[in-house]
Amino acid sequence: MLGPNRYGKAESRVVRIVRDTARHEIRDLNVSTSLYGDFAAAHTHGDQSQVLPTDTQKNTAFAFAKLHGIASPEDYAIALGTRLLDATPAAEGAVVRVEEYAWDRIPVNGFGHDHAFVRRGGEVRTTAVEVTSAGAAVSSGLEDLVVLKSTGSEFKGFLRDDYTTLPDADDRILATALRARWHYRPGAQPDWTTTYESVRALLLETFATTYSRALQETLYAMGRAVLAAHADITRIGFAAPNKHHFLVDLEPFGLDNPGEVFIAADRPYGLIEAEVLREGTT
Amino acid sequence: MLGPNRYGKAESRVVRIVRDTARHEIRDLNVSTSLYGDFAAAHTHGDQSQVLPTDTQKNTAFAFAKLHGIASPEDYAIALGTRLLDATPAAEGAVVRVEEYAWDRIPVNGFGHDHAFVRRGGEVRTTAVEVTSAGAAVSSGLEDLVVLKSTGSEFKGFLRDDYTTLPDADDRILATALRARWHYRPGAQPDWTTTYESVRALLLETFATTYSRALQETLYAMGRAVLAAHADITRIGFAAPNKHHFLVDLEPFGLDNPGEVFIAADRPYGLIEAEVLREGTT
Amino acid sequence: MLGPNRYGKAESRVVRIVRDTARHEIRDLNVSTSLYGDFAAAHTHGDQSQVLPTDTQKNTAFAFAKLHGIASPEDYAIALGTRLLDATPAAEGAVVRVEEYAWDRIPVNGFGHDHAFVRRGGEVRTTAVEVTSAGAAVSSGLEDLVVLKSTGSEFKGFLRDDYTTLPDADDRILATALRARWHYRPGAQPDWTTTYESVRALLLETFATTYSRALQETLYAMGRAVLAAHADITRIGFAAPNKHHFLVDLEPFGLDNPGEVFIAADRPYGLIEAEVLREGTT
Amino acid sequence: MLGPNRYGKAESRVVRIVRDTARHEIRDLNVSTSLYGDFAAAHTHGDQSQVLPTDTQKNTAFAFAKLHGIASPEDYAIALGTRLLDATPAAEGAVVRVEEYAWDRIPVNGFGHDHAFVRRGGEVRTTAVEVTSAGAAVSSGLEDLVVLKSTGSEFKGFLRDDYTTLPDADDRILATALRARWHYRPGAQPDWTTTYESVRALLLETFATTYSRALQETLYAMGRAVLAAHADITRIGFAAPNKHHFLVDLEPFGLDNPGEVFIAADRPYGLIEAEVLREGTT
Repeated sequence: MLGPNRYGKAESRVVRIVRDTARHEIRDLNVSTSLYGDFAAAHTHGDQSQVLPTDTQKNTAFAFAKLHGIASPEDYAIALGTRLLDATPAAEGAVVRVEEYAWDRIPVNGFGHDHAFVRRGGEVRTTAVEVTSAGAAVSSGLEDLVVLKSTGSEFKGFLRDDYTTLPDADDRILATALRARWHYRPGAQPDWTTTYESVRALLLETFATTYSRALQETLYAMGRAVLAAHADITRIGFAAPNKHHFLVDLEPFGLDNPGEVFIAADRPYGLIEAEVLREGTT
Repeated sequence: MLGPNRYGKAESRVVRIVRDTARHEIRDLNVSTSLYGDFAAAHTHGDQSQVLPTDTQKNTAFAFAKLHGIASPEDYAIALGTRLLDATPAAEGAVVRVEEYAWDRIPVNGFGHDHAFVRRGGEVRTTAVEVTSAGAAVSSGLEDLVVLKSTGSEFKGFLRDDYTTLPDADDRILATALRARWHYRPGAQPDWTTTYESVRALLLETFATTYSRALQETLYAMGRAVLAAHADITRIGFAAPNKHHFLVDLEPFGLDNPGEVFIAADRPYGLIEAEVLREGTT
Repeated sequence: MLGPNRYGKAESRVVRIVRDTARHEIRDLNVSTSLYGDFAAAHTHGDQSQVLPTDTQKNTAFAFAKLHGIASPEDYAIALGTRLLDATPAAEGAVVRVEEYAWDRIPVNGFGHDHAFVRRGGEVRTTAVEVTSAGAAVSSGLEDLVVLKSTGSEFKGFLRDDYTTLPDADDRILATALRARWHYRPGAQPDWTTTYESVRALLLETFATTYSRALQETLYAMGRAVLAAHADITRIGFAAPNKHHFLVDLEPFGLDNPGEVFIAADRPYGLIEAEVLREGTT
Repeated sequence: MLGPNRYGKAESRVVRIVRDTARHEIRDLNVSTSLYGDFAAAHTHGDQSQVLPTDTQKNTAFAFAKLHGIASPEDYAIALGTRLLDATPAAEGAVVRVEEYAWDRIPVNGFGHDHAFVRRGGEVRTTAVEVTSAGAAVSSGLEDLVVLKSTGSEFKGFLRDDYTTLPDADDRILATALRARWHYRPGAQPDWTTTYESVRALLLETFATTYSRALQETLYAMGRAVLAAHADITRIGFAAPNKHHFLVDLEPFGLDNPGEVFIAADRPYGLIEAEVLREGTT
């Protein structure tokens, strides 16, 4: 018996240049689309008559970058998802995921250049839009926002068992590569980019200014700050690897090391996942 | 309000040598553990008193490689998850995920060497065990099983719209890097490794011998073959990127190209996801 | 017969916090060291008596982050390389390679926070220092500086043969992920960081403001700009993948595409490598 | 002044199916080509008239997969490099690098299937051919041959200084991901594939059967074995990361650990590089 299924085209690398004036704009996206619904015949009998090819989904992603432009990843994803759902009678829903890579203008004599750009690096902006007959459900986020506090973080008073060797830490480095995803209430139409920038700033500020007794506590505070400031957001989830920085033992070399020299470890790493919800939502 | 949350230690690289005799055995694992339950105080008040540190989870993963050994990833994960749940009163469940990397003995004069090994490469064996008071739920799988058919695959008769340019294909390369995960019925205690090898062989054989009118149809056939052969398995899910191999146009150089020269593309790629369930299960 | 050989410790992840005041500083390095010289006995007879272990090299890398600090990657690498050479009588040379990852202070109310940082992303600063009895030879550089021009680039009038299908391009996207390495004259002691920032700015500005008839011409102009501005630099080398952005054909959908919608390709890519030397150097 | 320079097309993913009979063959290559010579005008004046486009190099790589086939990566690379040199009057040399990924037939009822394949994984076969007016210089190799010995390896009696903390090891795990490259004498025309398989087997056997007092000694023995067996090979070079497996301290848990449980570390790692030459060669 066929269970849940979906199909689509992943990672179309759509680059859109706006060149209406000599001062170009650039939007640089990684677009993945998928459809779900009644596609049983494709699985059971190889019947493709209800299947909009993934190649067509890709074509549509590029064509819509021209037709509708990319005012924001969210606006673009809503338009694209709506089109894919409309074009596919058997589909019950279309999901469009977008990653956006940021570019800065190259500074020349103190001014940003008209048509030369340098990729900013750092975090990736994301959105995931699910379009059904009920409308578009929008969640947005970011990935790989790498942050670190060199003090203001402890970890102590934890549960101990026979396999516990970790000592209490009064002052440690706290570092993570944050992934966050926040969900907008149905029907919300905020300025997506302004909201993104505000949420990003709140996450950073709260991380910076909250004394941390655990990464869990820090994430919870970050989530509450976002919900308090943005009525359009109903919940926010985090996945945060605890990127361990271990204090190096320099005693054998006659050196003390009061929180100065660390080794950044790769694996294993802690992994903390949590959601913060507005009361009354699910 | 705090929503769903969990925490743990990801990617502990556990290598276990069995050296009871001169003919050593090796098991090479990547182990991730996590706990969920009532850990609200850690989030809201930074109270760690119910939190078994991720460092302790790591220690336990290594200690259990000694104490219990690694008869199979599944046996090891069940033992480890049970221990973590028992050690943490606030936990409602423990999830242990394991990837295993296979090694072969190095052949010397036609025989496998006692203590020298070469990593096999190819697919990774996986398991995910969730232990709760109700027992252990086991699902196992594989990742990155890269397969290709050079004929016996078509894609035609699909839905067309204004953005469709893809022609029908009567004979194409079909290739994927398969990810599969199958779920065992509660209480099943098969020989995990024998079952793994049987499922892997069935997936390969079915891929090879089924004429494909779409990757969806091929996956469905593979899933049915597994469910037919293994009563202990209730469902199996697939994620299969359609790794496109495009026929290269050699006409400008006066050459024909009847399915002989292809360019293997990276992105975008099709992505097909489907589950096959035994009737009567959910 | 033993030929050229060297050995060392690669990728020690050294993180140094300067916390002399409440306003911390962070330096985040990836350090690789190696030694070469007369280590034949280690190869031919397994005699390690002249071999300073790679573990010791690692220890020294961390200890020197405390003892000497990290005024710049170059200063640190010179000190570390000198120590490793001194400690190893059989060594003729020590090579220290450093990658540095940049962090910014997290802005809070318009000011950078004292001890909370966000990783900048973008290019990585590098240095390679080779210390011998003749002194320290310093070359510095950067990797993964991703730049793009949306106009001001052509490629035409090239050599054609039977396998050439590429049409002339009057106006294309030019994009690369630049790797550059510049060599300082022996004995130079510039302010390494000021020089780094100046070279980086020159590379960006020249890329932005030079009309490009080929990536080769752009690189050459960039190299000349650096040599003209920095008497201490004797040569500069580049490796620049031509990250192709192909114009998408939207004609089948009734849309024109005058340089607006592109697909960013992964592979294959052009790869241009060139050095620019000051006259009279080799 | 322009220094050394070259340009080309990197990572063309050429897949060749031989389908002359119902029993297909597959060759799966990653091909990079480059040209060097007098291309100064392209750099200094943007004059492309002597520049064979990288796009043409790519076209030729695909066309030659049809025209000449791929008897071996070496034969293919020689033909391709010769063509590129011939087609480009300004070129002094053409370099063709090839990686080959191995596929096995999928076993069905004990026999390998005619047209269904599973990627083998494990090491990648490589070749680099440089074609000049003097002929073709061929070097071949492999990458990522991951091998491990669970005993038969020590490391002791090494040089100690103030930063040495490593104790002598009488019995440790030795593991590496081997990269090897061997150079054929000018004019050699061995059966490239037979030689590859023989060298690979010799490397594995020697690794397995040589007691190791250091990774250096093991590499040297491996190199000597290859030179002794293959008169056509003049030298062989290795790059071998020492993939550390650290014995886990289980004492705090009341468990001994006589070489049974290890943590596989990622970074830092030792890195040993060495060449072994036939006497009388350079």
